[in-house]
Amino acid sequence: MSETLARPRYRLFVEADLTEGAAVDLPQAQAHYLGTVMRAKDGETVALFNGRDGEWRAEIARVSKKAATLTVADRMRPQAPEPDVWLCFAPLKKDATDMVVQKAVELGVSRLQPVMTARTNASRFNTERARANAIEAAEQCERLTVPEVAEPVALPDLLAGWPERAPGRPLFIADETGRGTPLSDVAAGSEGAIAAFVIGPEGGFAQSELDHLRSLDFVVPVGLGPRILRAETAALAALTVWQAVRGDWRSGGPAFR
Amino acid sequence: MSETLARPRYRLFVEADLTEGAAVDLPQAQAHYLGTVMRAKDGETVALFNGRDGEWRAEIARVSKKAATLTVADRMRPQAPEPDVWLCFAPLKKDATDMVVQKAVELGVSRLQPVMTARTNASRFNTERARANAIEAAEQCERLTVPEVAEPVALPDLLAGWPERAPGRPLFIADETGRGTPLSDVAAGSEGAIAAFVIGPEGGFAQSELDHLRSLDFVVPVGLGPRILRAETAALAALTVWQAVRGDWRSGGPAFR
Repeated sequence: MSETLARPRYRLFVEADLTEGAAVDLPQAQAHYLGTVMRAKDGETVALFNGRDGEWRAEIARVSKKAATLTVADRMRPQAPEPDVWLCFAPLKKDATDMVVQKAVELGVSRLQPVMTARTNASRFNTERARANAIEAAEQCERLTVPEVAEPVALPDLLAGWPERAPGRPLFIADETGRGTPLSDVAAGSEGAIAAFVIGPEGGFAQSELDHLRSLDFVVPVGLGPRILRAETAALAALTVWQAVRGDWRSGGPAFR
Repeated sequence: MSETLARPRYRLFVEADLTEGAAVDLPQAQAHYLGTVMRAKDGETVALFNGRDGEWRAEIARVSKKAATLTVADRMRPQAPEPDVWLCFAPLKKDATDMVVQKAVELGVSRLQPVMTARTNASRFNTERARANAIEAAEQCERLTVPEVAEPVALPDLLAGWPERAPGRPLFIADETGRGTPLSDVAAGSEGAIAAFVIGPEGGFAQSELDHLRSLDFVVPVGLGPRILRAETAALAALTVWQAVRGDWRSGGPAFR
């Protein structure tokens, strides 16, 4: 296999349109990464994706410490549909939030929605940091998209706006009583292929929040097994089961909207 | 509900036998935790488990900064069978290894087996640290057991001894080519309820290791979806799918050996 057809050593998310022959100027941070951190040279190849045009091979036309220009060559993969599953989560300690964002991207989440609850420390969420983490994770796990990281919203507002903003999308909540229908059964029996999970903060939801959640017809309690999972474990386990049973891990091909 | 019948605020793993009326002296570290960190008082209740006798309510007879004695009262839960799934994993960076141990315990792993591979930095695994993390995670997630944390073993030795040490136990390996049968299908179609997963290091297995693994009849490649998962994500996702589909998350009751 020739050098130019080998898998590129670098993979970057860009905003620019990707078409054959296009010139793409990288923002300074990405130029710094390529030129200084990775010491990439002119002529090396880079995989590019923008969430719209698939994945393209590009060649480094010029790279210095502060600037880089790439020339788009050929398309390696077309854009393809992806499962549509949201994660609504109460921000945790910084390391745990970073991990949830990174792993949720690897697990194919389509939207990350921070939710402020009665027991959430609202100062804990840094949207820009989460977006940067999501881009890095998408680059590394070879996704063709970067999931949206929404601005934080208060739980009551999220729920009040749900029927309008997320029509037909069930909001699954982990049932801590252990009596919820196992998620694998719910996923296997689900008619639609769109979903959302809501995960509470470390101290759990307040009783009034649980009562409110359970009163809503789009909220569906699901079981995540007999052990007490930490919030971040519950978030990742829920996404994993959904993708494995209902999403794009299946041999029959992914189930999409 | 009376104070003494409420769920105890503390939960500890102990080595001692647990029977009604028994006196249990805590090791100094646990006494320090109860007396100094948590400022527990004489007369408060503690949940105890030892992996054999179920979970018991005990009362603090005496607690000081360096010593504590508990009196075992009544049994809250009998010992129950648990899924028998092992995780064989190449140690990662310290934080990632800590996370894998903690989350694997939450996800009900029965044995943690560190494995040294061609690309593993052997200095990275601290067995005592992992055992302490496993105990803490078991206490917090309300398991009735603490999984064994085995001493590290070289991959060739693990594989050579497998038929004798793990007869009938399939060793599932994540197929990075994306062509493995999806794990949820493998789990659903599995005849036995015992399993093991092996997860490589950050840089993946060496080609010679992969060739060796694939030549063994007890090694079964499985698919973990279309994205490239980090090692720690793959470990936790694999355990999650197994427990959700084949283990103790199911409504039909857990599948045991």
